Amino acid sequence: MNKNFNICFLLKKGSMGIKSCVTLIILLFALKSFSFNENLTPPVSNGPVKVSVDLHINKVYNINTVDETYQIDGYLEYSWVDERLKSVDEDSLQGIRVYENDRAKELFNTKMWFPAFELINVQGESQIPNMSIEIHPNGKIIYDERFFGTFSTYMNFRDFPFDSQQFSIQIESFSYNKRQLVFTNPQIFLEEGSNSFTEKWQIKNMKASITEQLYPQKDSMDDVYSRVVFEIDSKRLTGYYLWQVLFPLFIIIMASFVLFWIKDFGTQIGIGFTLMLTVVAFNFYSASILPKLPYQTFIETIIIVGYVFIFMGIIAVIINHRLNGNKDNSENNKLTKILRYVFPFTFFTALIVLFFLFKVS
Amino acid sequence: MNKNFNICFLLKKGSMGIKSCVTLIILLFALKSFSFNENLTPPVSNGPVKVSVDLHINKVYNINTVDETYQIDGYLEYSWVDERLKSVDEDSLQGIRVYENDRAKELFNTKMWFPAFELINVQGESQIPNMSIEIHPNGKIIYDERFFGTFSTYMNFRDFPFDSQQFSIQIESFSYNKRQLVFTNPQIFLEEGSNSFTEKWQIKNMKASITEQLYPQKDSMDDVYSRVVFEIDSKRLTGYYLWQVLFPLFIIIMASFVLFWIKDFGTQIGIGFTLMLTVVAFNFYSASILPKLPYQTFIETIIIVGYVFIFMGIIAVIINHRLNGNKDNSENNKLTKILRYVFPFTFFTALIVLFFLFKVS
Amino acid sequence: MNKNFNICFLLKKGSMGIKSCVTLIILLFALKSFSFNENLTPPVSNGPVKVSVDLHINKVYNINTVDETYQIDGYLEYSWVDERLKSVDEDSLQGIRVYENDRAKELFNTKMWFPAFELINVQGESQIPNMSIEIHPNGKIIYDERFFGTFSTYMNFRDFPFDSQQFSIQIESFSYNKRQLVFTNPQIFLEEGSNSFTEKWQIKNMKASITEQLYPQKDSMDDVYSRVVFEIDSKRLTGYYLWQVLFPLFIIIMASFVLFWIKDFGTQIGIGFTLMLTVVAFNFYSASILPKLPYQTFIETIIIVGYVFIFMGIIAVIINHRLNGNKDNSENNKLTKILRYVFPFTFFTALIVLFFLFKVS
Amino acid sequence: MNKNFNICFLLKKGSMGIKSCVTLIILLFALKSFSFNENLTPPVSNGPVKVSVDLHINKVYNINTVDETYQIDGYLEYSWVDERLKSVDEDSLQGIRVYENDRAKELFNTKMWFPAFELINVQGESQIPNMSIEIHPNGKIIYDERFFGTFSTYMNFRDFPFDSQQFSIQIESFSYNKRQLVFTNPQIFLEEGSNSFTEKWQIKNMKASITEQLYPQKDSMDDVYSRVVFEIDSKRLTGYYLWQVLFPLFIIIMASFVLFWIKDFGTQIGIGFTLMLTVVAFNFYSASILPKLPYQTFIETIIIVGYVFIFMGIIAVIINHRLNGNKDNSENNKLTKILRYVFPFTFFTALIVLFFLFKVS
Amino acid sequence: MNKNFNICFLLKKGSMGIKSCVTLIILLFALKSFSFNENLTPPVSNGPVKVSVDLHINKVYNINTVDETYQIDGYLEYSWVDERLKSVDEDSLQGIRVYENDRAKELFNTKMWFPAFELINVQGESQIPNMSIEIHPNGKIIYDERFFGTFSTYMNFRDFPFDSQQFSIQIESFSYNKRQLVFTNPQIFLEEGSNSFTEKWQIKNMKASITEQLYPQKDSMDDVYSRVVFEIDSKRLTGYYLWQVLFPLFIIIMASFVLFWIKDFGTQIGIGFTLMLTVVAFNFYSASILPKLPYQTFIETIIIVGYVFIFMGIIAVIINHRLNGNKDNSENNKLTKILRYVFPFTFFTALIVLFFLFKVS
Repeated sequence: MNKNFNICFLLKKGSMGIKSCVTLIILLFALKSFSFNENLTPPVSNGPVKVSVDLHINKVYNINTVDETYQIDGYLEYSWVDERLKSVDEDSLQGIRVYENDRAKELFNTKMWFPAFELINVQGESQIPNMSIEIHPNGKIIYDERFFGTFSTYMNFRDFPFDSQQFSIQIESFSYNKRQLVFTNPQIFLEEGSNSFTEKWQIKNMKASITEQLYPQKDSMDDVYSRVVFEIDSKRLTGYYLWQVLFPLFIIIMASFVLFWIKDFGTQIGIGFTLMLTVVAFNFYSASILPKLPYQTFIETIIIVGYVFIFMGIIAVIINHRLNGNKDNSENNKLTKILRYVFPFTFFTALIVLFFLFKVS
Repeated sequence: MNKNFNICFLLKKGSMGIKSCVTLIILLFALKSFSFNENLTPPVSNGPVKVSVDLHINKVYNINTVDETYQIDGYLEYSWVDERLKSVDEDSLQGIRVYENDRAKELFNTKMWFPAFELINVQGESQIPNMSIEIHPNGKIIYDERFFGTFSTYMNFRDFPFDSQQFSIQIESFSYNKRQLVFTNPQIFLEEGSNSFTEKWQIKNMKASITEQLYPQKDSMDDVYSRVVFEIDSKRLTGYYLWQVLFPLFIIIMASFVLFWIKDFGTQIGIGFTLMLTVVAFNFYSASILPKLPYQTFIETIIIVGYVFIFMGIIAVIINHRLNGNKDNSENNKLTKILRYVFPFTFFTALIVLFFLFKVS
Repeated sequence: MNKNFNICFLLKKGSMGIKSCVTLIILLFALKSFSFNENLTPPVSNGPVKVSVDLHINKVYNINTVDETYQIDGYLEYSWVDERLKSVDEDSLQGIRVYENDRAKELFNTKMWFPAFELINVQGESQIPNMSIEIHPNGKIIYDERFFGTFSTYMNFRDFPFDSQQFSIQIESFSYNKRQLVFTNPQIFLEEGSNSFTEKWQIKNMKASITEQLYPQKDSMDDVYSRVVFEIDSKRLTGYYLWQVLFPLFIIIMASFVLFWIKDFGTQIGIGFTLMLTVVAFNFYSASILPKLPYQTFIETIIIVGYVFIFMGIIAVIINHRLNGNKDNSENNKLTKILRYVFPFTFFTALIVLFFLFKVS
Repeated sequence: MNKNFNICFLLKKGSMGIKSCVTLIILLFALKSFSFNENLTPPVSNGPVKVSVDLHINKVYNINTVDETYQIDGYLEYSWVDERLKSVDEDSLQGIRVYENDRAKELFNTKMWFPAFELINVQGESQIPNMSIEIHPNGKIIYDERFFGTFSTYMNFRDFPFDSQQFSIQIESFSYNKRQLVFTNPQIFLEEGSNSFTEKWQIKNMKASITEQLYPQKDSMDDVYSRVVFEIDSKRLTGYYLWQVLFPLFIIIMASFVLFWIKDFGTQIGIGFTLMLTVVAFNFYSASILPKLPYQTFIETIIIVGYVFIFMGIIAVIINHRLNGNKDNSENNKLTKILRYVFPFTFFTALIVLFFLFKVS
Repeated sequence: MNKNFNICFLLKKGSMGIKSCVTLIILLFALKSFSFNENLTPPVSNGPVKVSVDLHINKVYNINTVDETYQIDGYLEYSWVDERLKSVDEDSLQGIRVYENDRAKELFNTKMWFPAFELINVQGESQIPNMSIEIHPNGKIIYDERFFGTFSTYMNFRDFPFDSQQFSIQIESFSYNKRQLVFTNPQIFLEEGSNSFTEKWQIKNMKASITEQLYPQKDSMDDVYSRVVFEIDSKRLTGYYLWQVLFPLFIIIMASFVLFWIKDFGTQIGIGFTLMLTVVAFNFYSASILPKLPYQTFIETIIIVGYVFIFMGIIAVIINHRLNGNKDNSENNKLTKILRYVFPFTFFTALIVLFFLFKVS
């Protein structure tokens, strides 16, 4: 940048006076660099910039239980006041000026102060097919973007498929701490037509709140950031899992109790092993819809209960067979008769206990 | 921007006169900023800008029943009149000027008013391999783009695979409400050669209409937007599902009625469980072609009916076996004889009832 | 743009003379707008621009029978003559000038007339890792690009896996109709080293042709466009399907004829149902390699034939069993003896009939 | 750029002579290109530039055991001092200047020396949704970026699913060797809220270190580069594999020991083969969660042990059957009685041996 | 760049006054085209430009046997001498100048001659996270890039999984034929830490060579291009396929020989069909790891052999059963006794023959 001054010295030997030279340099300087030196500071007159945020959700979709992610299609509307944009506007132009897409980008990359907003719990970059900046005569700025982003939150699948999940979006300023920028007045809306979401999830609660986030490790002292948190508490509608997974599983475990009503030992054993193979199929199916969690979910516990009951059934049948082996009335002995009722009873008790255990925890 | 005026004051003290200074500033101003201050307002003389829209569909493809999305390859042609572009053109150049791709982008980012159009029900950004702007001497502007986009609509799968779906594209202006921009005269065309779509779907109706969309939450008062809705009502051609899914399923349920014609109890039970395993396979297959819906589709209901019939068959066989246990003519007892006809009859009745239930609802 | 004239009026009152002002304006105009106003019209002296197109195919790959798409890696070479580039070149530089990649892009976005070429049957944007423009002293322009694109054509799978498909690329000008631009002299070449394609497909014919495409819906009158069509007619090499799909399927249907040579009814029925389960596996496998078509392909028909024969076999065995029930020589009765030969014979007849039906249609 | 010559014209009539104008143009020209000649050398006063690096990890996710990759969402903060940026800043502006995203990019592409940092073990380009450069008055530069990257390290699966893995990020300067740039004072932090990672992995150790990397092949002599290595040593939490894979596998191998307690030979053999089919299912499942490794992992060894025991069980049953063939008390012979205890005992011994072998190695 | 001044000096001697000259310079400047007219020709003084190429491979990964592709993460270093960059450099700056990423891109797009290098066997665009250009005072240019690319070569799977493959990268200049640009002195290096590759493949040979490629179809006469070929000959380490695929398959075919040691016909037949179902599972598994090839690979041949042996076993059992039907000692007849040894013997002979056939071919 001190190149400019060299220019000055060269020009001295020319016909221009030193004053003109300085003028010229100022002009040159202004032209080239002012887009970088100006517009870099937040409009802090008294206190931090107050940015109000609205979230309009079109759709929550591709809810991926394996990756614990979900995609959100919506609009984010940030609005704040920059007094510096006020005066100029009132002089030159009437009404609201609208800058869309590339024009908006050029505007906030060169002409105005624009803070980068960071989606904290996003996964990868989000897509912004449309954005706009509205500048009002009073210096109010409204930045609106349509976004498609993949977000992730911690999901607890213990009660799966009777679980509730919290779909959230957390936003912070990327560079400005709470002394420079605070969020205010957040609002969350769900647009009509989000059928494909509300069809599968029952919305319990929607809330928007402002919190403060401490980053003690950062080496600057100003380590508290203002954060907006949008949350949709929802309960899974379990029709599919109830009828396509739990119902067949239930039928199959039911069918295993048939073992004790059958006389022929070979048939009993054959059925036992066929049922075990079927439970293996359900085991692998459940592996395809849930992450590889260290804890047991409700559905996986049911499958393990299935394994245990069928295995115990096979063992019981063999023990019985050995005790009452070759007798013709093998199936009428006492043990079998007891097991006929003990197994279903234990199973239903286990089911009820499990259901309450998972619901309570 | 007031930097410019400071320059002026500095120059006053230089050798240039004040007039030159003003000239200079005007020039500087014109050069640098006019692309941002100009061309930002819609050409509103009397009433809103009227934008007519044509949609030419090449292909509807990758219809994903699990995600409830479909991709559309087509052309969108927007056209409106901007009087401001009229005069200049008639002076300088004859005929229509065509700007393609990057040239078109540069044009509408700097030289003309260009409203951002928003695909409401799109999923993610759409691809625009080619675009063009035609400017006619009379100020008429035709913006034409080839687009590839993934769209989503609410799909009702209750009658699946005998369902009809509505493939639609909804378009709004991103920033301009209906007082500034209204759509008019929408038209939808299907290009020849969309074989891969019409091969799998029968088009019932194609329509294009203009509606108004209210956004009451937005904080500006002008919250009504003009919207174009393109719709293709289509009926699924069910050959595949009929022959590759329902037919085998039907054969398998049929085969389960064979149970009552078999004398040997072990064989009966073995078949019963093998058939149940086969229905599990169909269950998991249907899970791979439909979303995890809370309601039952036609195909899933048939599968549940299959489970129930096979399970009831097994129970019936066992009850019968226990009642008529070791008799040689076990299979000729009354119960079996009745069930031979009751099961198929009930099944076909259920099928007919289901068919009408799903068709009517 | 009329801003410029205002500047003029202002300047009149300044220290500059009117002439300088005009010069200035011309200069400004030239600088800012000439890249937009110039080079926008095709070099139409007498008749349309003649663009010759060559396609050099490196590879046809990822042939996706489910989506009915294929990817092509190749070179497209367009060449035409623009007299306007002739004179300038001969003055300033000798020989051919080569502009690659970003330089080529900048060239055709600002300095020369360049028509956008549209790949009609592409799916999404294609990738262009390298491109070049050669400008010859005589004004001849050669635009060469390496491209990777996903293309789609209507595929007929009726004879699958004995089918032939036509891999094609169709190209049109995006904005210029046949009065402004016509294609001429198209050529198609297959580079050496396309082994992975020719290994799986036998090329029957390669042709390049020019057609005309009518777009009657477009609202301009000039609705006929010149189109280049490149086609590779190929026949699928069926080794894989023959040995990995049809051969096992054949063995399994063969094995079902064994039913009638077995004496024990329970064994017969058990085999029947195990075979049905195996055909279900083939059914689901074929679903993973073909789209969900409303018509029956050869391979699917064979599977349905398999279902039918195995089901009929089960029925036949049961009928026979009921007629000759408990007799020791059940398997020597007449019906069984006849079926032993009727089933294979009918099956082979069906196979031959099917084969000819599918080949002829 | 067009401003430059306007100035010229204006100046002509001002006090500057034509020579000055030419000079001016030359100068302007110089100005334009100097951004490329300047700012290219590192600020090496005495010794190399010292760059300190902090890594803040938000999330380690999508840990893909098949591809041996993992994705990291985090912040990388590089900071160094460039004296050349010091003086200018203190003159013109107070406090810290913040450049975000496109402004930051423009800054380091034109105005300052900025070394490219290379993620050594990344796979493909990483996504940078937000970045910022802070320039402190004392010339200190802090470059901060949020990144999403896919990384890979060598993973040893011998003990899988009881394995520990090391998730690491390695960073080097792309062009500057250790005489020009050294890393210093690296720190690694794990942000709160990384639940989805800590839920599945137990963090054993987190460390950050500086190493030196020799590239002897490079043809420049300065072939030693400073490298930062961040490492998270973690142990897999095995709940899922224990209960969803090993437990069923264990049950199934257990069930195979039942063979020797069954009297009927046909039932024995039937069970043996059904179990083998089940082990095949587990075999294919384990193939879907691990890469195709030349060595045997713990889980695969268990499966092979399963194959061997079931196969040996079948052989034992047949041998026994042939030796004691048609005797009524076939199941009470000595061999069977011994095998009843030998098989489980051998299996548990094998299990314990394997467990220790894998743990020790 | 000094071209402008020459024009000025030339014009001085012409009829135009100095003013016109200035005007001219302004115009030239305005045109901004000099960056396009200059730096476009290769630095051909005597003979073609000699470009030496080094390839440093970090990793060969995602080796996809189905698509016949592999990904390479590495560095490509091109270096050549451009005398035109020599003089300027020695005047203005000492030492090596380094341009990274966007600066490098701007440099070769505007300021220097830079040939586009084409990866011949790449699939799609490759990713270049970092690149740098070093300009040495003597005019030597080193262009270095880190790249991630998907490459494809013809792979022969006949011996799979005992196959060797050749991973290669082929590079050509996109526009300059061998009279303008030749490659020289290619070198290939494998960086340490490529464990995940060397773990699965044994490297046999690494070589780099220069060949010439003829493009006879191109319409220019200069149709021979210099090509660099890098090759890594590697042998697959077969641990996984040996133990997870061939071993179970072997066990299962072994188990089929058990047929002839079993007395009960029903059990024999049941086992036969269960084994066939298991081979179907292996059949579909092998379909998921190999492309749909018209020829038979080793592994697929083994599977077909499996089908044939099991099918022949079933036939043999039935024939034997029919011949020696109801006799009590059916299993001791001669045919069975012979088959007990004929089947295993034939199988092992077939295996050995196949192994040598595939190895030799």
